[in-house]
Amino acid sequence: MQRILSTQLRAQVGAPVRLAGWVHRRRLLKTVAFLIVRDAAGLSQVVVTAPDVRAQLEELTEETVVEVTGTVAANSAAPAGVEVVEPTVRLLGAPAVPPPFDLFRPELAATLPTQLDHAALSLRHPSRTAALRASAAAVAGFRSTLDRLGFVEVHTPKIVASSTESGANVFAIDYFGRPAFLAQSPQFYKQMLVGVLERVYEVGPVFRAEPHDTGRHLAQYTSLDAELGFVDDHRDVMAVLHEVLAGMVAATGATAAMPAQIPDVHFTEALKIAGAPLDEPDLAPAHERAVGEWALREHGSDFVFVTGYPMAKRPFYTHPEPGRPAYSNGFDLLFRGVELVTGGQRLHRYEDYVAALAARGEPIEPYASYVETFRHGMPPHGGFAIGLERFVARLTGAGNVREVAAFPRDRHRLTP
Amino acid sequence: MQRILSTQLRAQVGAPVRLAGWVHRRRLLKTVAFLIVRDAAGLSQVVVTAPDVRAQLEELTEETVVEVTGTVAANSAAPAGVEVVEPTVRLLGAPAVPPPFDLFRPELAATLPTQLDHAALSLRHPSRTAALRASAAAVAGFRSTLDRLGFVEVHTPKIVASSTESGANVFAIDYFGRPAFLAQSPQFYKQMLVGVLERVYEVGPVFRAEPHDTGRHLAQYTSLDAELGFVDDHRDVMAVLHEVLAGMVAATGATAAMPAQIPDVHFTEALKIAGAPLDEPDLAPAHERAVGEWALREHGSDFVFVTGYPMAKRPFYTHPEPGRPAYSNGFDLLFRGVELVTGGQRLHRYEDYVAALAARGEPIEPYASYVETFRHGMPPHGGFAIGLERFVARLTGAGNVREVAAFPRDRHRLTP
Repeated sequence: MQRILSTQLRAQVGAPVRLAGWVHRRRLLKTVAFLIVRDAAGLSQVVVTAPDVRAQLEELTEETVVEVTGTVAANSAAPAGVEVVEPTVRLLGAPAVPPPFDLFRPELAATLPTQLDHAALSLRHPSRTAALRASAAAVAGFRSTLDRLGFVEVHTPKIVASSTESGANVFAIDYFGRPAFLAQSPQFYKQMLVGVLERVYEVGPVFRAEPHDTGRHLAQYTSLDAELGFVDDHRDVMAVLHEVLAGMVAATGATAAMPAQIPDVHFTEALKIAGAPLDEPDLAPAHERAVGEWALREHGSDFVFVTGYPMAKRPFYTHPEPGRPAYSNGFDLLFRGVELVTGGQRLHRYEDYVAALAARGEPIEPYASYVETFRHGMPPHGGFAIGLERFVARLTGAGNVREVAAFPRDRHRLTP
Repeated sequence: MQRILSTQLRAQVGAPVRLAGWVHRRRLLKTVAFLIVRDAAGLSQVVVTAPDVRAQLEELTEETVVEVTGTVAANSAAPAGVEVVEPTVRLLGAPAVPPPFDLFRPELAATLPTQLDHAALSLRHPSRTAALRASAAAVAGFRSTLDRLGFVEVHTPKIVASSTESGANVFAIDYFGRPAFLAQSPQFYKQMLVGVLERVYEVGPVFRAEPHDTGRHLAQYTSLDAELGFVDDHRDVMAVLHEVLAGMVAATGATAAMPAQIPDVHFTEALKIAGAPLDEPDLAPAHERAVGEWALREHGSDFVFVTGYPMAKRPFYTHPEPGRPAYSNGFDLLFRGVELVTGGQRLHRYEDYVAALAARGEPIEPYASYVETFRHGMPPHGGFAIGLERFVARLTGAGNVREVAAFPRDRHRLTP
C-alpha cells in the first residue's frame, strides 16, 4: 500500500491507508487515545482503542518516526474532518529522545539561542517550517518573474581575489597558499555577464564578516541578485524590481500593501520626512522606519523607494545623478521600514571607472579584470540585490532574520 | 520607439524598429556594407549604403555597443530572412577596444587559458553563451522536476565548523578569529532538513581544494543536491534521480539516450565489465569509460547506475548493503562514461552513526550537532548530488568543465 500524506486523507474516507511521519503528540484519555502524526503536509489524527496498540502508544516518545496503517473515518470533530481508526503502528527507527522543547505547542517556548542550538529540531515546529516554505516560495517568485522577463540564471565565483563592497567585513581564505576572500556579493560578475547575456540573475550565498550583532545581519545570507543592460537609468531597474517583488509576495501567498505605483522619494526628501539633519550622508534605521511609516500613511504602501543616495556612501561603480554629481542613481527599497534592497544604475564607461577609483584613492590593480571589461563594450546597465532572509522576516513578522534562516551564521555562531 | 530583439525582426517587416547590441562583425564591400549586430537573442543584419553611415561604420570597432534605428526589409538571402535598411547608428558607449580573439568566427581560436583569462569576453562567443544557457536550463529542469515531486528548496551554510566529506581537499577560513571551513557539500544539512521537510533540494556552490588539474574538477562547482525521506532503500532515490535527469535533459532541448529503464549494475559486475581486477575498491576513469560504453552498446543508454560501491570508499554516513556489509547502498551514475552523480541511502539510526565513526577511528565531537539529530527521530532516507558543470560538459560535448563554467576556479586560477 502506497504511503499517503495527511492532506490526502479526506479523499480516502472508508479506505485503508498507510501514513508515515513523526509522533507529534499523544493524548491518552481514559477510554480512548489519540496519536497525532506529523508529516511534510501537516497533521493526522489517529484514534487508538485497542489495548495492545494503546500500550504501545504509551511507550512512544514524541518525534519517533512511525508508520500507521488503518482505515479513514469521517469525524467532523477531528482536526481536518477525518481521522484514522483501527490503526497498527510500526516504528521506522529507534524511539526518539524527546527534544529539549515541546514541538506540539502552538508557540516555541525556547529562547532563540536555544532554538538555534537545536536548529534541526526547532525547524520542525510548524511556525519555523512555514518560514522555510515561505523562503522557497519567495525565491520561486523571484525566478519565475525574471524568467518571464528574459533573464538568465548564472552561477558565479564565491572565492575572489579582492573584496567587492569594501575592504572591511570580508572573510579571508587560504586558497592553495594564496590569500583570497569570500565574495561579499556577485556584483562584478553579474555586471560582466550583462555584457554576455544582457539580463542575468543569481540566487546564492554572500558572505559578510559583520562585526555587529543585530536582528538584521547575518555572516552568510542568500542574496537575490539581478542585473540588466540597455537601461535608460535606475528607473528601468526599479520597474523590474517592482515586478519581482510583486511576484515574490504573490508566490508566498502572503499579503503586503503594494500600490500600482510604489512611492519613491529622493534621498534629500527622505531626510526631511524622517526629520533628520539635512547634511546626513545616509539613513539610520530610525530614519528608515520613519520613511516606511510615511509611505504607509501617505501612499498605503509597505514598500518605498529612496532614490538619489549620496555618492559618498555608495560603492565606486555607482552612476552619479546627472546634473547633481554629489548624488547618485542608486536607490534603496525599504520594506516596512527596513532596507530590503540596494540597487541602482552602474557606471558603464571604462574612463569613468578609472576616474571613480582614482577619486577614492583606490588602485585599479585589484579590480583589473573587472574594469578591463568596460573597455570592450558595455551597455548602460543597473541592477539590485534583495536579502532573502530580510524579505521573509519582514513578510512573516519575524523580529530577527535568524528566525527564518535554516542554520544561521553570525560572529558567535558557526554550528550547527 | 521600444527596442526589439533580433528574433523579433521577422514580425516587423516594413516597420521602423530600434535595435541595440554589440558590433559583432562588419563587412565592407564596394557598394554596400553590412553591420551584424549581436544582442541577447542572436544576430541582426543591417545594410548600409548611405555614405555618411558607411563612413561611421568604417570607424566602428567590434564589440562597440550601438543602437540602430531603421526599417525592416525582407530578404531571403539575409541570415534570418530579414534585414534592417536605411539605418542610423548611435554609439551607446565609447568605441570598444577589440578583444584579443575574434568573437565573430564560428570557433573561438584562442587557447582555453586565454579564453579563461578574458572570460568576460570569451563568454560572448555564441558557443560559450550557449553553455551558460544550457546550464540555466538544466537547473530549471532540476528544480521543476523536484517541485513537482513535492521537494522544497533550501539554503544551507557554506561556512562550517568541520569538513563533511573528508579531511583533505577542504579550504580553511578565518571565521572571526576561529578556524572554519568552506562546505564541501550540503550533505549534513540536507539530511537534517529531511527531518523537517521530508524532501529537500539545494542548488549552490560547493568547494573542493582539489590538488589535481583535470578536465573534470573545479575548486568551486555548482552542486544540485536532493535528499528524501521515507525511502525503502537507494532504489527509491535512483527512481527520483531518473526523473530529475530526464527533466534536465528535456529542459536543455538537447538529446541524450535515456531508455525507460536506466541500466544498473552492481559494483562487482562493473569491475568485470571494465576488465578490472576484482579486488579494486573503486572505479578508475578508464573503468567508468568502459562501463559507459557497455551501457550504450548493450542498453542504448548514455546513463548507467553502478550500485553497491564498497563501504571502504564511501563516506561514514553511507548505509551498508543488507546482507553484504562490505558493500553499500551507495551508487554512482555515469553519464557517457563519466561519474556525474553520487548518491545512496544514508544511515538513519543514531547508534549506527556512533558505530560508523568509531569503526573509522573518527571522534564524534566534530559531527556532534549532526549526529545528535539522529537521536530525535529520522526516517530512512537517501539522496544524491549532481555536478552541474559535468552535466553540461557531457551534454554539450565540452572536453573540459572549464568550458561551461562562467568564471571557473582551480588551484591555479583565482581571477577573473
